[in-house]
Amino acid sequence: MKNSKKTNAGLNRRDFLKFGALTGMFAGASGVASACATPASNGNFAGRAKYIIFMVSDGMSHGTLQMADLMSRRLHGRPSKWIELYEQRAVTRGLMDMTTGNASVPDSAAASSSWGCGHRITNGNVNMDDNENPFEPIIPIFGRHGRKTGLVTTTEITHATPAGFTANVQRRHMQDDIAAQYLEREVDVMLGGGRRHFDPDVREDGQDLYAGFRDKGYKVALTKAELGQPNGFGRVLGTFTERHLPYSRDHENTEELVLDVPTLAEMSKYAIDTLYASGDGFILQIEGGRVDHAAHSMDATGLVYDQIAFDDAIRVAWDFYLQHPDETLIVMTTDHGNANPSLNAAGSGYNDSDPFFNRLQEFTYTNNWIMRGLNEDSSVADIVARVGTATGLDFERDHARMLQQALRGEFQAAYAMKARPMNVLGGLMSNYTAVSFTGSVHTADYVELAAAGPGSETLGPITRNTDWFGLMLTAAGIEIPEMRQS
Amino acid sequence: MKNSKKTNAGLNRRDFLKFGALTGMFAGASGVASACATPASNGNFAGRAKYIIFMVSDGMSHGTLQMADLMSRRLHGRPSKWIELYEQRAVTRGLMDMTTGNASVPDSAAASSSWGCGHRITNGNVNMDDNENPFEPIIPIFGRHGRKTGLVTTTEITHATPAGFTANVQRRHMQDDIAAQYLEREVDVMLGGGRRHFDPDVREDGQDLYAGFRDKGYKVALTKAELGQPNGFGRVLGTFTERHLPYSRDHENTEELVLDVPTLAEMSKYAIDTLYASGDGFILQIEGGRVDHAAHSMDATGLVYDQIAFDDAIRVAWDFYLQHPDETLIVMTTDHGNANPSLNAAGSGYNDSDPFFNRLQEFTYTNNWIMRGLNEDSSVADIVARVGTATGLDFERDHARMLQQALRGEFQAAYAMKARPMNVLGGLMSNYTAVSFTGSVHTADYVELAAAGPGSETLGPITRNTDWFGLMLTAAGIEIPEMRQS
Repeated sequence: MKNSKKTNAGLNRRDFLKFGALTGMFAGASGVASACATPASNGNFAGRAKYIIFMVSDGMSHGTLQMADLMSRRLHGRPSKWIELYEQRAVTRGLMDMTTGNASVPDSAAASSSWGCGHRITNGNVNMDDNENPFEPIIPIFGRHGRKTGLVTTTEITHATPAGFTANVQRRHMQDDIAAQYLEREVDVMLGGGRRHFDPDVREDGQDLYAGFRDKGYKVALTKAELGQPNGFGRVLGTFTERHLPYSRDHENTEELVLDVPTLAEMSKYAIDTLYASGDGFILQIEGGRVDHAAHSMDATGLVYDQIAFDDAIRVAWDFYLQHPDETLIVMTTDHGNANPSLNAAGSGYNDSDPFFNRLQEFTYTNNWIMRGLNEDSSVADIVARVGTATGLDFERDHARMLQQALRGEFQAAYAMKARPMNVLGGLMSNYTAVSFTGSVHTADYVELAAAGPGSETLGPITRNTDWFGLMLTAAGIEIPEMRQS
Repeated sequence: MKNSKKTNAGLNRRDFLKFGALTGMFAGASGVASACATPASNGNFAGRAKYIIFMVSDGMSHGTLQMADLMSRRLHGRPSKWIELYEQRAVTRGLMDMTTGNASVPDSAAASSSWGCGHRITNGNVNMDDNENPFEPIIPIFGRHGRKTGLVTTTEITHATPAGFTANVQRRHMQDDIAAQYLEREVDVMLGGGRRHFDPDVREDGQDLYAGFRDKGYKVALTKAELGQPNGFGRVLGTFTERHLPYSRDHENTEELVLDVPTLAEMSKYAIDTLYASGDGFILQIEGGRVDHAAHSMDATGLVYDQIAFDDAIRVAWDFYLQHPDETLIVMTTDHGNANPSLNAAGSGYNDSDPFFNRLQEFTYTNNWIMRGLNEDSSVADIVARVGTATGLDFERDHARMLQQALRGEFQAAYAMKARPMNVLGGLMSNYTAVSFTGSVHTADYVELAAAGPGSETLGPITRNTDWFGLMLTAAGIEIPEMRQS
C-alpha cells in the first residue's frame, strides 16, 4: 500500500484534527469550505473503542427509514429500533454529505471508499484514484494492528459496500479480484452472498478460492446449517447464494430459503459473537444491501421489509453495544438516498394514506418476485393473477395492460427511466399502496447518520463522509496513515 | 376561547413537562409511546425568549433543502444559510414527527395547528376538533400577554400555515372567516398575499376588512411602495397580490412584480424591525409557502428558487438572532414533505447528475409560467417554443407530444396522480434536470428541524409536533393553558 508506508510516529489529537474529522469542516462540490465554530469535543475518545460496528442500509432515503418505522408499529406494535433510539436519546444524530470525487450523487463504491480510506474518489472506483493509485482501506489497517475484522451483507460479499472497507480495485465490477483480495488480506468473518466469485467452476480464472480459505483455516459455509452456531473465535466465510441473498419478504415466505439462508440479524449475531470471542477487538461492517436494490426497482415491498430486516440487525448490534457501551462505537447510516420513496397522501382530504399503506402488510412477495413470473408473452389475465398471488390485490385490468405494454417495450413514460417494466410495475403499485419513488436511481440527498459510543460525542449537525476514516482509527487507537492528496 | 378559561396559576418546570414538550415523549399513529431516557435539559430556559421566530418552508422534503444548498453554492459560491448553520454547529437539529389527528401524512392546516395549539387534529381543520371545539392558538395567547405578533408568508396571508398560529375555523378553506379573525385578534404585522379575503368587492359577505384594519390604526399596503420602510413600531397589513405571491423565479424575472411585490426576505426584515421596535417582545411566523406549491406541481425551478428565497429570509432572521442570541428562540422547519424531490443520478457511470442540475441555473421561469401559456389547443411547436423561452432548452418534440396529450386529457401514467398536465411537464423536465418527484402530494416523512436560542438546548433527535406549543410558551414565560383532551 503506497499510502501506508509513511505513517505518523504517534497519534495525538492534533493528527486527528488535521483530517478535519467531525469538526464540522466541510467542502461541497463547489469547493466552498467553512470552519467549525465550536470545538468538536472536549472529551478524549482516542483508543477507547475496542469494538466498532458500522451499519449501512444501502440506498436508504429518509422516507425508507420512516416507512419501516410505520410498518414496525403496525406489525409489532413498537417503533423501529432506529427511531426508538432517537426517542430515547440513546444516539447522536446528524446529516452526512456523501459527495464523491466527481459527483453530488454517489455510487456505493466511492461512497463506501470515502469511509474506508478517507478520500473522495470517482464513482465506481474502490479505494483507488483514477491512476490506479491505491488508498489502504480500513479493514486491512485494522488487521495489521491485530484487530479482528468482519463483513456482513445481504448482497454478494464482494459487492461495493463491503469492498469499500477492504479492497483496492479500479472498478467495482472486478468482484473476482475483490474476492482474491479478501483471501490475501484475511478478513476474519465474511457472511453474505456471491458464491460465483469464490467457486472455481464459475470464476473466470478458475481459481478455487474456497480451497484457499480452507487452507488458511477458515470454515467455509454454503448453508445456514453449515454455518451452525458460533463457538468461540474462528475464521469463517459464509456464502449462501450464487449472487445476492433474497429480499427479506421473499425469503421469509419461501421454505427452502428459510432453511438455507440466514437473515441479516442472524449473520450479524454470528459475526459479533465470533469476533468478540477473540478478545482482540474488532471492526465489523454490516450492510442491508438490498434496500438499495428495492429502491432501484421502485419496489415498496422489497424496500420496507428489507429495512425492517436491517432494523432487526440493529437490535442485535445494539444489544452488544449495551453490554460494552464504553468500548463500542456503533454507527448507523446509509451511503446515499435512492429514489427517495415516500408514503404519499391519498384519497380525499388527505386522509387515506394509512389504509393504502396498510395493504403492504398483506403482500407476501416482492415486485421482483412478480416480475420473475412475467415476460413479453404474458397475458393481461396472467398479470392480474401473478400480482394477485403476490399481494392479494384485485389488480385492475387497465393497470395490467400498462404493464403488458411495458413488458413489450411499448410503454411511454414522461420520465424515461420509469419506462422499464420493473419501474412501470412500481408506478402502478403506487396507486394501491400510496408509496412512490422519484425514479430508480441514487440521489444526492444528505443522508441520515446516528452513532453512539466513543467518538460519537463529536458528531455535529452535518459531517463529511471522509471524516469517518480518521474518526474510526482514532477511536480504535490506531495511528492514521499520512494522507496523500488524491 | 373555551380552553383559555382554565389556566394554571403559575408556570413551573413540572407544568411544562406535563405536556411532554421535547422530552422525547412520542406516540406514533399506532399509539405506541416510549419514555425518554435522558432528562430534556438541566438549564432553565423559561421566560428567556423575548423574541420567537418560527420559520416554515412549507412542504420541504429533505431533497429540497439539499438542492437549495447545491444551487446556492453554484449561484453564490456559498452554502445555503441553513446548511451553513449546520456546518458551524450554530443550531441544534433533529427530526420531527408531524403526524396529525387522523393521518401519517399531514395537511398544512393540521400541521401548523399542532404547533399552534398543541393538539393533533384532523387534516383540514384549523385549531378545532371535529366537533367545532376550538383550541386557543399561540398568537392570540401571546397577544393577550402583551407580546407583539406577526405573520409573513408568500401565500395568501389567510392560508393554512399562518392560520394555524392564529385562527379557529372548522375547515381551512374558510379564509374569509380567517381574515375576519385576524382583525378581531389584532395580529400586529401581516405581510403576504390574499387581497381577495379583505376586499369588499371580492369577499362573499361584502365586508370591507381593509376599512376595519384602518379603523384600528393599521397601515394597509397593497404594494411594496405603500409598505415603505419600517419606522418604529406600527401595525401593518400588507397584501400584495389577489392570491398567492409569485414564485421567486418568476418574480425576479418580471419587472412589474419586482416593483410591486416584496421578497420574503424583505417582508421578514420589515416584520422583525417593526415588531422589535415595540420593545414588548414578539412571536413571528415566517412561511416560505410556495415551496409546497412547487412540489405539488413537480416544478424544480419553482422549488429550488423558492427554497433559496426562504434561505434569504433565514439570513435576515439569523442576523437578528445574532444581535439577541440570549433572548431569541429561532426555529427552522417544515410542516411535511411534499413529493420528496431528489437530484438523481443521470448519464453513464452515475457521473452526470451535476451537469443536468446545472441547467436549472439557466431557467428563467417556472413550469407554472410555462403552463399558463399552454392549453389543449397548443401545437407541438407552441410547446417547444414556450419551454424554450422559459428554460433555454431544446425541448424534444416527442416530449412536447406527450405534454400535448396530457393537455388534451389523453396521457396515460402508471401512477395516476402523474397524469395531470402540470405533472407530465414535471416528469418530462426530469429528463433534462435529473430532478424528479415521487408524486404531487404531501408525504409522511419525519421532517427536518433546526433551532437556536432559549429552549433549543432541549431538542432531542426526534420531537413531536405538538411539543412546540408548550416549548414556545415556556420559553416566552407565558403560562400554558390547561390542555383538554381533543
